[in-house]
Amino acid sequence: MSTTSILDKAADNIRILASSMVEKAKSGHPGGAMGGADFVNVLFSEFLTYDPSDPQWINRDRFFLDPGHMSPMLYSVLALTGKYSLEDLKQFRQWGSVTPGHPEVDVERGVENTSGPLGQGHTMAIGAAIAERFLAARFGNWMSHKIYAFISDGGVQEEISQGAGRIAGTLGLSNLIMFYDSNDIQLSTVVSEVSVEDTAKKYEAWGWNVITIVGNDAAQIREALTKAQTETERPTLIIGKTIMGKGAVAADGSSFENKCATHGMPLSEGGASYEKTIQNLGGNPENPFVIFPEVEELYAKRQAELVKIAAEKKAQQAAWEKENPELAKKLAKFFSKEAPKVDFAAIAQKADQATRAASSTVLAAFASQVENMIVASADLSNSDKTDGFLKKTHAFTKGDFSGAFFQAGVCELTMAAIANGMALHGGVIPAVGTFFVFSDYMKPAVRMAALMQLPVKYVWTHDAFRVGEDGPTHQPVEQEAQIRLMEQLKNHHGKNSMLVLRPADADETTVAWKLALENTCTPTGLILSRQNIKNLVAENGYTSALQAAKGAYIVYKPATKADIILVANGSEVATLIEAVPFLKEKGIEVQVVSAPSEGLFFNQDESYRNEVIPASTPVFGLTAGLPSTLQRLAGANGKVFGLDHFGYSAPYKVLDKEFGFTAENVVNQVTAQLGK
Amino acid sequence: MSTTSILDKAADNIRILASSMVEKAKSGHPGGAMGGADFVNVLFSEFLTYDPSDPQWINRDRFFLDPGHMSPMLYSVLALTGKYSLEDLKQFRQWGSVTPGHPEVDVERGVENTSGPLGQGHTMAIGAAIAERFLAARFGNWMSHKIYAFISDGGVQEEISQGAGRIAGTLGLSNLIMFYDSNDIQLSTVVSEVSVEDTAKKYEAWGWNVITIVGNDAAQIREALTKAQTETERPTLIIGKTIMGKGAVAADGSSFENKCATHGMPLSEGGASYEKTIQNLGGNPENPFVIFPEVEELYAKRQAELVKIAAEKKAQQAAWEKENPELAKKLAKFFSKEAPKVDFAAIAQKADQATRAASSTVLAAFASQVENMIVASADLSNSDKTDGFLKKTHAFTKGDFSGAFFQAGVCELTMAAIANGMALHGGVIPAVGTFFVFSDYMKPAVRMAALMQLPVKYVWTHDAFRVGEDGPTHQPVEQEAQIRLMEQLKNHHGKNSMLVLRPADADETTVAWKLALENTCTPTGLILSRQNIKNLVAENGYTSALQAAKGAYIVYKPATKADIILVANGSEVATLIEAVPFLKEKGIEVQVVSAPSEGLFFNQDESYRNEVIPASTPVFGLTAGLPSTLQRLAGANGKVFGLDHFGYSAPYKVLDKEFGFTAENVVNQVTAQLGK
Repeated sequence: MSTTSILDKAADNIRILASSMVEKAKSGHPGGAMGGADFVNVLFSEFLTYDPSDPQWINRDRFFLDPGHMSPMLYSVLALTGKYSLEDLKQFRQWGSVTPGHPEVDVERGVENTSGPLGQGHTMAIGAAIAERFLAARFGNWMSHKIYAFISDGGVQEEISQGAGRIAGTLGLSNLIMFYDSNDIQLSTVVSEVSVEDTAKKYEAWGWNVITIVGNDAAQIREALTKAQTETERPTLIIGKTIMGKGAVAADGSSFENKCATHGMPLSEGGASYEKTIQNLGGNPENPFVIFPEVEELYAKRQAELVKIAAEKKAQQAAWEKENPELAKKLAKFFSKEAPKVDFAAIAQKADQATRAASSTVLAAFASQVENMIVASADLSNSDKTDGFLKKTHAFTKGDFSGAFFQAGVCELTMAAIANGMALHGGVIPAVGTFFVFSDYMKPAVRMAALMQLPVKYVWTHDAFRVGEDGPTHQPVEQEAQIRLMEQLKNHHGKNSMLVLRPADADETTVAWKLALENTCTPTGLILSRQNIKNLVAENGYTSALQAAKGAYIVYKPATKADIILVANGSEVATLIEAVPFLKEKGIEVQVVSAPSEGLFFNQDESYRNEVIPASTPVFGLTAGLPSTLQRLAGANGKVFGLDHFGYSAPYKVLDKEFGFTAENVVNQVTAQLGK
Repeated sequence: MSTTSILDKAADNIRILASSMVEKAKSGHPGGAMGGADFVNVLFSEFLTYDPSDPQWINRDRFFLDPGHMSPMLYSVLALTGKYSLEDLKQFRQWGSVTPGHPEVDVERGVENTSGPLGQGHTMAIGAAIAERFLAARFGNWMSHKIYAFISDGGVQEEISQGAGRIAGTLGLSNLIMFYDSNDIQLSTVVSEVSVEDTAKKYEAWGWNVITIVGNDAAQIREALTKAQTETERPTLIIGKTIMGKGAVAADGSSFENKCATHGMPLSEGGASYEKTIQNLGGNPENPFVIFPEVEELYAKRQAELVKIAAEKKAQQAAWEKENPELAKKLAKFFSKEAPKVDFAAIAQKADQATRAASSTVLAAFASQVENMIVASADLSNSDKTDGFLKKTHAFTKGDFSGAFFQAGVCELTMAAIANGMALHGGVIPAVGTFFVFSDYMKPAVRMAALMQLPVKYVWTHDAFRVGEDGPTHQPVEQEAQIRLMEQLKNHHGKNSMLVLRPADADETTVAWKLALENTCTPTGLILSRQNIKNLVAENGYTSALQAAKGAYIVYKPATKADIILVANGSEVATLIEAVPFLKEKGIEVQVVSAPSEGLFFNQDESYRNEVIPASTPVFGLTAGLPSTLQRLAGANGKVFGLDHFGYSAPYKVLDKEFGFTAENVVNQVTAQLGK
């Protein structure tokens, strides 16, 4: 144990570095970082367990930051552990630096998650805590570790923290320890202007263990963290009352603490004196990027301890592996980046069923063949058909993580962010289900998954107005065009930031799941039908559907040259196929293309693309979404028939007729387009 | 007061009608409707104040339903009040009926809000309660009325209810009375499988008055509602423990209550006996669509009371109007559908400023000229510059609604749904601000605003990678393309469901706000820059910018025929303008088009469109969003230079260079495109 005076010195060191980073960058958020410094300092110098020489060690504790704007605090404490150089800190917020304005996941450097949009960071921690429990239930408590989260006033206010708080309490995630940096100041106002919430009471209502302390007092932080270690029933919330801009002083030497003005700009811009503040904290404003010798020593001592602790834990693991060679192999497989092997060809699909039902069949196979998959639903398991998986396992409950299903309750965004946390933790493959129209709620977390390149799977069912009677609030129209924007957006590796698949029948659904499982680098969205769909005419079913891997492929090829290419995805492909004989009667030869993924298709070489959709042939597209959904595929001169309104409540077969999603209307549209 | 036995009979009548609607439609949700019947029955037969002959009466109480799937309950109780015929009930969920699967706002029939996506309905009630307080503060307590909300387990779980609960408690909305239909059953599971939450304690933590009762007991409901009327400090939550599928029986006559299976399908499909259930409830399964005589009498008696109550209240209003003719005129204006008159030409804009700053100038003018505007920010008022408005007024606080600013705290979705509720209440014009990247969070409420045709204004600032140092989590890329999908989507009146404007300079910002204010039929999104933008070369500033009303217009016209049309919106227009002289040097004559709204532009006649972007001339588009953002405007053969990745953290001028958003790169792109 270090004396608290050394801890205070180290916290001041963090404050100096953090505020200097912002001052140098002329941009950023010093105040929160200065207030939260004491907690991260005690956590990193006394509690957080990791292997300094093995950042990816699966058994490390994880630290999830929620308020990404407090990045200077994170980078500074990580600089004390040697993960960032002082030069890195000086390059804060600059082009090409490893210290961007908001942290981006970088496990090698100790950054466990991307953060910035408030609330999502600590929700990812809940996901990691669930993954930890899931793995410990399978491999033993030797691999238990703690998940720490750091949340601010903004994160507590974000809607998502309600889902996170409820779930952590319900599941009794005692491996989760969250520090609430309660400084009573937010960006625009003091907290009391927007909230009279009794936060301790709220978390107690969710079944949390709540401890309230002075958050700038090292001894109290230590005591609270020590207590939290032994909690076995509940997640712990340590509410630390902290001082925004702790240590800041004005030009006249008076205190400049507790001011909104220190939230989002350099101290000097906000009205404090940067120089006086650095002096007040024991630093030299001429040369602020320094680690004090005694602080260096403090962290060096901790590093030495950690080397020992990690070695001991690894020895335990080695002993376990020796005793349990099969389990050890399985564990290694879980944490490998390799896609699990599944015998997809053996999955028997009933013909002419809804693709959500076909998805259920695949998920049932996964339940036995993909042992590290966790499937979740936001209270729609019997409707989005994730219950195909559930029926072969059971849902998590407090104290029992031997099942593999996660009943999230009604909270789509929380569920998606939790899936991100599971993926970040590693060792598990999360898949989450809800209605496609509610992908709107998930978008902020889907974007984070895409940015972090996490292989989360989204099961989005009830994919079009063919939802029918539930009406406009439940009929997705613009959602497919919207989510496919993520296919256009490239991630930092230059790859499509997301894979989006809307299969046309049961066999394509099997293949879509195959592609989803094999996609270990980006999130995948599966867009599935509520209603039954006639199987495509393709003779070889699954084998033929394997071509879906190219994004789009020919499902019907005419004997002679096609007069027109008909393109669609999902249930609309079957409608096109239905129109083929009628068009033939009229002397029109068509080629029908199923295009489950525009993104994959545009990655194919030109010769393939030109074979599927020849540039010289007219194109007709049919989509239950906005016409623009298919316009890129149909090409500049293609015509797309789609929906341009919110839909109406009625049985879907009535809507098909009213909206023109029938073979008859396809015939009319195509003959009109060809001027026949 | 009616005896509770008549009330029980009436509630059974609702249960019979509701379950029969679902049975007849072969689709829908009977169980919840059957459990909640007792509450709505007591509310509508004894408490809710409205004028039976004047459904739009501004001083009526409002009832907001949250769980839209419980529509059979709402339609049935409204049938008892005469708003729906029994024939309407029989047409539930059918094409062209007035009884869609989920309720769609229809004030004439007593449906105050569209519902379906859980959580949003009661949040709209919070918005209506704020609007009520805002108006009472200006016109006197004679126009006080109550806002009732009905929420279910799913709504309580949705993330948004946290924002709603915190805000209602903080603002002390004692005019809000919410019934929580707590039946412990949700779609997939019993509630206890997904939540250990102590809901009473949670709402108490937010400062609510919580009353727990047996929710199927009319006397207890009456008592709770009576108590709630006198509360003056806090919103009231009545937690009613109810029985899902109350009255349902199986074929063998045993109880079929409290079962998930009654949630989302006809009783007969879920395993209950429809016939036995109707009999058990005192109805005739052969002829279930009947209002019992004593129930008819109960509601007729209430109608007669209401006529009196309304007449008394209206007499009060008339007296007040006579004494306060100016205020009365103002009140009428507030509730008219006319846009307020503002002297936009007199708004002086500083040149070359950020469009968020220009927006701030306009908002400052609104603060005095648009007296019924409520501006909100999700804790970014000093950053999204809604503080231009705030500086001229003050924020709402508990007990004081004399100001016109709403500090929402960090909760973008809640804020947007509250704005919907304000607009539904009427009398006020809500505008809400946050960063554009967080429009992702708001989308589900924006969609509802579009569906309900509410004139909410969104102030979305920090509109591109030019946010700079904050990095990818804060740099919108796909968001503009995404939100413009709403321009393509038509509402039930066949109009663009939303107006989206991204002004190119300060003057265009004034015009954009003019268009937003004049748009009283759909939501409007304003997409604004963080960074300064050089004013366009247009000679007449504001007068010239008025052409923005056409969606796109020529801001630079060459002396001779243009070799190419350059099109952009927002800050990219200035970049195009900057490139003009360099292109001229190379002998390339260009026409520059500013296109703040693609949606408006495509509504113009072809001759205008062809004047602005002639079909025969090559087009080059520049966008800080995905290239597809501008592709529709640039046309099939146009070339668009945009961004196809998430962005990076660095000063925006560095990013401009790195990403090619410079005059120099425009010159390179255009010369390459023209093969020069």
